[in-house]
Amino acid sequence: MQQIAMINEKLVGYEDLDPVYLDRGFYFGDGVYEVLRSYNGKIFAIDEHMERFSNSLSAIGINTVNIDHIRQKVVSAFEQSQISNARIYFHITRGSAPRNHSYSTDIKPNFFMTIIELPDSTKSKLNGIAVSTFPDWRWKRCDIKSLNLLANVLARQDAESKGCEEAILVDENDHITEGAGSSFFAILNDTLLTAPLSENILPSITRKYVLKAADNISMKIAERSLTVADAVGADELFIGVTTKDIVPVVKFDDKDIGNNMPGENTKKLVEEFKQFTV
Amino acid sequence: MQQIAMINEKLVGYEDLDPVYLDRGFYFGDGVYEVLRSYNGKIFAIDEHMERFSNSLSAIGINTVNIDHIRQKVVSAFEQSQISNARIYFHITRGSAPRNHSYSTDIKPNFFMTIIELPDSTKSKLNGIAVSTFPDWRWKRCDIKSLNLLANVLARQDAESKGCEEAILVDENDHITEGAGSSFFAILNDTLLTAPLSENILPSITRKYVLKAADNISMKIAERSLTVADAVGADELFIGVTTKDIVPVVKFDDKDIGNNMPGENTKKLVEEFKQFTV
Repeated sequence: MQQIAMINEKLVGYEDLDPVYLDRGFYFGDGVYEVLRSYNGKIFAIDEHMERFSNSLSAIGINTVNIDHIRQKVVSAFEQSQISNARIYFHITRGSAPRNHSYSTDIKPNFFMTIIELPDSTKSKLNGIAVSTFPDWRWKRCDIKSLNLLANVLARQDAESKGCEEAILVDENDHITEGAGSSFFAILNDTLLTAPLSENILPSITRKYVLKAADNISMKIAERSLTVADAVGADELFIGVTTKDIVPVVKFDDKDIGNNMPGENTKKLVEEFKQFTV
Repeated sequence: MQQIAMINEKLVGYEDLDPVYLDRGFYFGDGVYEVLRSYNGKIFAIDEHMERFSNSLSAIGINTVNIDHIRQKVVSAFEQSQISNARIYFHITRGSAPRNHSYSTDIKPNFFMTIIELPDSTKSKLNGIAVSTFPDWRWKRCDIKSLNLLANVLARQDAESKGCEEAILVDENDHITEGAGSSFFAILNDTLLTAPLSENILPSITRKYVLKAADNISMKIAERSLTVADAVGADELFIGVTTKDIVPVVKFDDKDIGNNMPGENTKKLVEEFKQFTV
């Protein structure tokens, strides 16, 4: 019996494969991830990110990871990188094994991390961005931060092909869930609106801090699902994303929002958010 | 600026990473795959598999792959393997690049294939298998054979934890879509029943040949969605999967089907299916 494998144009013995090629992350997207950032040498909200990561691991039944050990690796590698404003990405997959949907419970998880300098987002934050809508094709457990992100990729690519920076995902009932890689907010009559937490959206950490910022400045908050018509008719829109915190949205599916300028309430939230990042 | 990466416990320079670690298959499940098998040295239904693969590639916007070249690689590697009854798995991912949801259109796709000997499935085919239901958490484009398979993994693992060989996925309207890695069929009053093709199920090649076999032996066919109650009340049940073609189901969520024995109509279909594989 001769078992073989092929990597691009190269034939190799199946037994000689580097385990990375048998990683279940490849075959199934069988893993979960986090993205953190630092502001001026300090990692933001690491407790919340590690807690969410731990929840994601549990939700897919990866139970053998020591979360404190992961945290130590993140902090130590970040310190060694000496990058002041860094984007820290890491994932854990279930491990490497011959392809089979089911898995052995003694499989050893794989860890992977990158720490790179954050690209500058000053322009987006200052001038606001354009977004476009795309059907929310994602799975039904978007509360788990998993590596199954093809729906997000297709949505974001569609948005960029239209000259937009983000795709806003719309479910079959015409309700906005969130962005392809962000949470979504509207302001109407000085009230901050965003979808309630559910299995349809990620428990965004930026969202949590945005709500805290709104509360700090006594802005009214209503957690309810928004329709596309709600968004188009809003006074102000913005997205929340770890790498850029608050980014004003000034165009939604080609319709100007707030005269194509970041709104006053959004600016107040941006200012208040800075309190958390010093 | 120092950019770093970490693979398990090892710190490496970001620039020194093997491109496999930057494969979008890892980050996003951004790729599509096929599984073929051979019967006695002959690959089954390769035309259909290559056509479906081509459709999957197009559906996610990977447009730079020469499908004839892929077919040649598959056939040539299979011949070199000299495995008579082989399971051929291959995938193409969009390519390797620093993590970003959107992608450059000039990114170069990555190909990966394994050819291994098929495990023996005589016992399952002869005695039938037990299956259990699980919520269909998958995305809304299950017609695309993508690498986003975490929902399938969780369903299959749940089934195996219950001593079952396959999970049958049930949507929020209590309708059965298909198995975690198979298509699903019932026989009621000598009529073969299976869900119609849609964006909710894979256009299974085994399904196509099962319908052809039923037609060959003048069995009535009705393509309609089945509820869990329909399945429990059916005379016979079976799944269809490339690696084993027809496998009788004799237990569905702990309820015996057809006295816990493969049914007569199913056996006729198994016999007729053999015509296609000689």
